[in-house]
Parts: sequence; structure tokens; C-alpha cells
Amino acid sequence: MTEVDILIKGAKVLAIDKAENYFEDGFVAIKNGKIIDLGPTEKNTYIAKETIDGYNKLCMPGLINTHTHAGMTLYRGAADDLPLMAWLNDHIWPLEARFGTESSVKAGTELALVEMLRSGTTTFCDMYFFAEVVGDVAKDFGMRAVIGEGLIDFATPSMKTPDEGLKQMSMLAEKWRNEPLLPVAFSPHAPYSCNQDIIEKAKNRADDVNALFHIHLSETKGELDQFLNEHKKSPVKYLDDLGVLDKNTIAAHCVHLSDEDMAIILERDMAVSHNPQSNMKISSGIAPIDKLVKMGVRVGIATDGASSNNKLNMFEEMNFASKLQKVSTCDATALDAKTSVRMGTSIGADILKIGDTCGSLEKGKDADMILIDLDKPQLTPFYNPYSHIIYSMNGSEVDTVIIRGKVIMEKGIFKTIDEKEVIHKVRKIEKEIRSFQASRK
Amino acid sequence: MTEVDILIKGAKVLAIDKAENYFEDGFVAIKNGKIIDLGPTEKNTYIAKETIDGYNKLCMPGLINTHTHAGMTLYRGAADDLPLMAWLNDHIWPLEARFGTESSVKAGTELALVEMLRSGTTTFCDMYFFAEVVGDVAKDFGMRAVIGEGLIDFATPSMKTPDEGLKQMSMLAEKWRNEPLLPVAFSPHAPYSCNQDIIEKAKNRADDVNALFHIHLSETKGELDQFLNEHKKSPVKYLDDLGVLDKNTIAAHCVHLSDEDMAIILERDMAVSHNPQSNMKISSGIAPIDKLVKMGVRVGIATDGASSNNKLNMFEEMNFASKLQKVSTCDATALDAKTSVRMGTSIGADILKIGDTCGSLEKGKDADMILIDLDKPQLTPFYNPYSHIIYSMNGSEVDTVIIRGKVIMEKGIFKTIDEKEVIHKVRKIEKEIRSFQASRK
Repeated sequence: MTEVDILIKGAKVLAIDKAENYFEDGFVAIKNGKIIDLGPTEKNTYIAKETIDGYNKLCMPGLINTHTHAGMTLYRGAADDLPLMAWLNDHIWPLEARFGTESSVKAGTELALVEMLRSGTTTFCDMYFFAEVVGDVAKDFGMRAVIGEGLIDFATPSMKTPDEGLKQMSMLAEKWRNEPLLPVAFSPHAPYSCNQDIIEKAKNRADDVNALFHIHLSETKGELDQFLNEHKKSPVKYLDDLGVLDKNTIAAHCVHLSDEDMAIILERDMAVSHNPQSNMKISSGIAPIDKLVKMGVRVGIATDGASSNNKLNMFEEMNFASKLQKVSTCDATALDAKTSVRMGTSIGADILKIGDTCGSLEKGKDADMILIDLDKPQLTPFYNPYSHIIYSMNGSEVDTVIIRGKVIMEKGIFKTIDEKEVIHKVRKIEKEIRSFQASRK
Repeated sequence: MTEVDILIKGAKVLAIDKAENYFEDGFVAIKNGKIIDLGPTEKNTYIAKETIDGYNKLCMPGLINTHTHAGMTLYRGAADDLPLMAWLNDHIWPLEARFGTESSVKAGTELALVEMLRSGTTTFCDMYFFAEVVGDVAKDFGMRAVIGEGLIDFATPSMKTPDEGLKQMSMLAEKWRNEPLLPVAFSPHAPYSCNQDIIEKAKNRADDVNALFHIHLSETKGELDQFLNEHKKSPVKYLDDLGVLDKNTIAAHCVHLSDEDMAIILERDMAVSHNPQSNMKISSGIAPIDKLVKMGVRVGIATDGASSNNKLNMFEEMNFASKLQKVSTCDATALDAKTSVRMGTSIGADILKIGDTCGSLEKGKDADMILIDLDKPQLTPFYNPYSHIIYSMNGSEVDTVIIRGKVIMEKGIFKTIDEKEVIHKVRKIEKEIRSFQASRK
């Protein structure tokens, strides 16, 4: 009997590995932050310092949110039922100009992480302001994150110039080089909001440190039309001509794509981050995800920020993704449950370049996993784990969250995070935001 | 100080009445099952046998699910990623032929009601088999329901002939005449599955007792094509020519509508029940709901059955409804939050002909309401109740459910329903269904 740190016993274990392992009565053994073994409970030979009873629970990899702006939880529900540019220009940017301080972004990020962890997300890819603060919160909460300082042609709340932002990113790449949970992503906001120089510099510096290049791309019809008009080419072709698209690129949205755009995306082996709820709510459009997936493009799923969605819940996002593809392609078999589950886990990890570390339950990988309480009316009866994950869960059933072998939440209770204090801090900022909104009316 | 039965104090009270009353710090006084007063807490003059602390809770009318097949929870997730007819023919109908017994339908209905109540639904409109059993469960659980025996040209699990079903409905209309929670709806399944005679008889008998006429209509492109081919008219025109469409009609789905169909629907003042998740999952199509609403058609929201959705959660359904209209009309202002909230509450009640009784919080109406716990990360910060209901809640935040002045659930605990036993009963049937599925492979 080998001793391990944590032993999960008697759970339904869904590995999301290549072999599609599923153990109806399974165990997972965790030591030094890693999965050292898993399989049917009858083959378990481990004893543990801490045993987690998996009876009537589903154990699966933690979900991977490939595109968000965590700090924007501050503006959740502050402005809705508006198209993207009106929403940004008339509401979000004025709010950010006024409330985009280091302490506010910290409070909003803490809230975002609590919301994501509670609904089963263990990794997120962020693009926002005060990247160092975001990283510090993620470290503090024990959450895995790919973090980027959003670069844009004008001054942001955190950076006077985009060059300053680039310097900041290089510094963070160095600072976090040995942080197991914190890779960086160079993150120019979008081709329409960043000049060519900044985009190229960001890509070069990302390459220097083998980091991701994370950008919004082809989100709205307006953006597409602007590029066709000004540059006589699509935003995808524009970036491709700059030579910045490759396997280290993660492009969020990719709603408006021509066949030529899709061919470029495939050929460059770049990754797409699909944000169905945000695209629907802002009426950006329906991304051709089923087609991209069938072509062989790596597509992950994401929530976008909490003020355009309005939440950070990957279970809901996967559900929307599958259903939106089915109805838009008139094909009920499109983006089936198993495909969406993989996009939310193993493919997401691959896209973020951490696929060797997490995204599936396999020997030697980090122990990033969640346990879901199946003892719920909405999860009864239980025939197929993939079906329930996509079509029946909404994230409220997440019972336990483990990241790198550390139990972050157990039986719905955070172990080291003071959730009430996190909520309390945001409520204080909410009061100021309400006053600001009232004064603008 | 007048004594009442229940006094809710210090809640955010959203009335969904015509005046759009919203009290940030409000009270609701309930006596003999009815709301006798509501307003700002400072104007409260009541004492009560039972006081409910509404601090940091949102009090609103219970949600109204205008179209479901409660007993189908038994088949939740048993077959997915399939178009409607393949799903029905190859999976659901064989399962119903084998497991559509009175005791199974009872168990499935109990589970459905627990799921609906837990996620804030206080009223549902059902079309399934063993209608009397469904009504008995609803009565037993204290839930408001509009119940119909599904009529179809061939034998169903409960009825050898549709005429037998009609007789049953007339009997139930008589039996439940004085049941405050149980009106009936005459429910021929669909124009493609019921002959003209049954449809006309059902409408005539419904009129005899002033009951609703509830039918599936224009759900798929296949149905539309079949009618255009066989009858040279749309399903809507076909039913209109039979003279069965009027203000007592509730037509579920209505996905494929021509301008002429929409004009008929408006002119007859018939009601539409919109089922966005089911329509998306089965790839039936996108109903023109924003257009219908703007024309002045009464549209409610519904979950459909739990095997085509795969849940019975009206919060999620309203969220899908708004987002699906925005993306399909390319208009981010379409079906805004306030409109969807009204569709899920007051308009739903109006459609089910119980609008004088429930659907909004008003003096003299029955006390059908829910309290939602706002002390959640996903509901922080809080700027606008409509926004949170549609875009941030997923039903897991429902804390308390009151129907006709009776507290059904409080702090997430059922007061009179044995939820564990309900789940346990379905799990026994699940085992048999698994064996049956394995034997058919």
C-alpha cells in the first residue's frame, strides 16, 4: 500500500484522455500535486492522508476558460441589451476610465476567481489591466491562469502607452518564469484598436519568451466591414500578412470568417476561443465552430468578461456552444456533447500550451480536477456523463475543486478563500458605481 | 397592526405588475393564501405568524412554464444529439412504449416537479400521459398546473384511442372544477399526429368547459413541408381553417412561420409558447419571437420535456430566449431583459388564463412567489433586477418558494416533499431503462 496525499474513491471518473477512459466506480491517487494513478476502485492499492468519498460524484478535469477579462465582474449587469460598440463607448469605457484602479481591478478579479472556481473552472486566460495584480490574485487563490496586460492604442487605466504595456509583459514573463500556475500571454486588444507596430512588437516579444499571443479577432460585422474597406482584406488576412498568426496564437471570437480566413486559421494551426453567450448577447453573430472543428482547427470555449455574458460559468458556456451550433447549422448532431466537453477541458489546455500539465486526468499530469455532486434532481437519472455535463449541469453542482493537488473548495466551501469578504469588497465599489451612473443620467 | 399569515420583510420586491413596481427595501403581506398588501418596508403595518427575512433576497412572482412533458424526466440524457423525428422514433417512443406505466409517469412527474420548484417555477402547463396522475402529484406537492392528456392518432401508454383520452379530459375538467391549482387543457399532440376529427372534437369539448386548447405547432421544417405538400397550406393555416385557433389556444414552438401565419396568430389572439433550448438542441430552428412580441402576440416561455433540453429550468430558458433572439435578429436590443422576465411570469399567467390569479405580485392575487438569494458571487454586484434574472441567475439561487400562501421550499429545503425519496424512486427505474437500452444495442 503506497501512501499518497489525496485519494478519491468510489467516484465516476471521466478522464477526457485520448483513450476516453471512464470508470463508473473509480479512484484517483494524488501525490505532490500530481496524479500518480487512476482506474477502477477495485484496482486501488493506495492509502492516503486525505480520502475524498466520491460516491455519487463525477470526477473530471477542471474546466478551462480560454478568454476572459476577470476584472470586469465589477460591471456585471451595469449595461445590457446593447450592441458591442455602444456598450463599450457609452458604458464600459467610461466606467473603466473612472473605476479602473489597481484596487478595483483586484477586487473584481477576486470576485471573478471565486465565481469561476465555484462553477468548476480551474484555469483561465485573462486579458485586462494591471496584469501583475491579476497574477498575484491567481497565485494567492491557487488558480491556474494565463495572464496578459491588454494593449491598446490609447492610454489604459494601467498603462500610459502600449510600449509601457509591452515592457510590463516582458517583466512578468521573467518574474513568473518559474511560477507553476502562471504563464503569460502577450495581448494586443484587437487589430482595430492596436496599430501594426504594437501588434508586431507584441508577437516578437511573445516569441522571445515562447509565450502565447492573445487577441480579439473578427468579432463583429462592423470590424470585418471596416477592414475590407480600409485594408481591402479581412482582419484574419490582415494579421496573417503581418506574420503574427501561428500555433502560439489564440484568437477570441472569430465570428465573421470567410472560407479563406478559415483556411488561414487551419494552415497556421492557430487556436480559436469561442464565446457563445457574449456573441449572442451583443448580437455579434454565430461563429462557424462546427465547421472549424470538423476542419481540424483547435477551438476552445470561453466566457468573455462578466459584463457581456453576464457570468463566468463554463458549464453554461459549453451548453450554449453545442446548442447554438445545432440550431445554426440545422444539424442536431453538430458539436455533440463529447466534443464540447473536450473543448472545455483537454483542447482548452492544449490551446493554452499547458496540455502536458492539465486538461485531462492522466498519470503524471497535475491534479487539476473537480467533483460534481450527482445527487440533484436535475442530474437524475444518469445515463451518460457527457450528456449531463453539457445538457443538464449548470455549474451549481460543483462540490469540490482541486488544483495542482491542493483542495481549493470542498463540499461547496472554500478552504482558504474568504468568499464573503470578496463579495463585500465589490459591494463597496458597487455603491460608488451606482452613484457615478446616477450622476451621468 | 393587522395580523397576517406570512410577512416578507426587507426584500427587494419586483412586482412585474403594469406599474412596474420595484421596492428596494420592500414587504409582502400574505393572508389566507393571498397577497393582501406590498410596498416599501417603511410603510409596513403588519405583524405575522411567520416572518421571512428578505435581506439580500429578491422577491418576485414564481416562474410559469407554459409547455412541458413532466414525466419525460425519466429519459433525460437517454438519447441526445439527434434531430426530432430520429429522437422520437428510435428512442423516446420505444422507451415510452416500454416504461410508460402509471407508476413510472408518477415517479417522473414527481422528479420534474421537484426540479421545477427548486429552480423557481410555481406553475407548469403539462401535456403527457396519465393526466390524472400528473394532477394528483401536482396537488400533493402544492404546485399550480394546467394539465392535459396528450392525444394522438395511435394508442398511447395510457389510452387505447384518442376518444378515450377526450372522455378522460372531460372527466378531469369536471373533477377538478373546484381545485384552485388545477385547470385542464385539451391537448391534441400536433396537427401531424392527430386527425382532423380529434382536433375538432378536442376544441369543441374544451370550449364546452371554457378550457385551454394546447397543441404543438410548426415545430420543424419537416412538419411545414409536409403540410405544404399534403394540404397546400401551412400547419397554422390548416388549424385556422378548422376553426380551432382563438384566445384559448396555446401553441407550443411555432418555429416555422410565414408572415401570413403570424398575421393569423395575431388576429386570433392565440398564444405562443416559446421553447428555445429544445428548438436549439433538436435543431428545429429559431422561432421569430422578437417579431411576434413586437406585433403584439402573447408569447410565453417554456422548457419542453427534460429529455429534449435536458432540464426544466425557467431561469435558463429565459436567458436562452433573450440571447437567441439577439443573435438571430442581429439586434442586441431584441427581447431585452424586462421583456423576457414578463414572458416568464405575467404573460405566462395570462396565456394560461390564470393572469387574474398569479403571475405578478399584486394585492388580491394568490401568493405565488419566490425569494432568490443574492448573496452569491455570480449575482454580485447588483445594479438591475431584470438584468440579473435574465443574464446572471441560473435558478440555483432560488431560496424560497411560496404557492398560494403555502411555503413549499425554504432556504433550499423542501418543507413537505421528500426529495431524496423522489430521486430514489427514479433511480430504480433508471436501472431498468439502462438494461432495456443495453438489450437493444
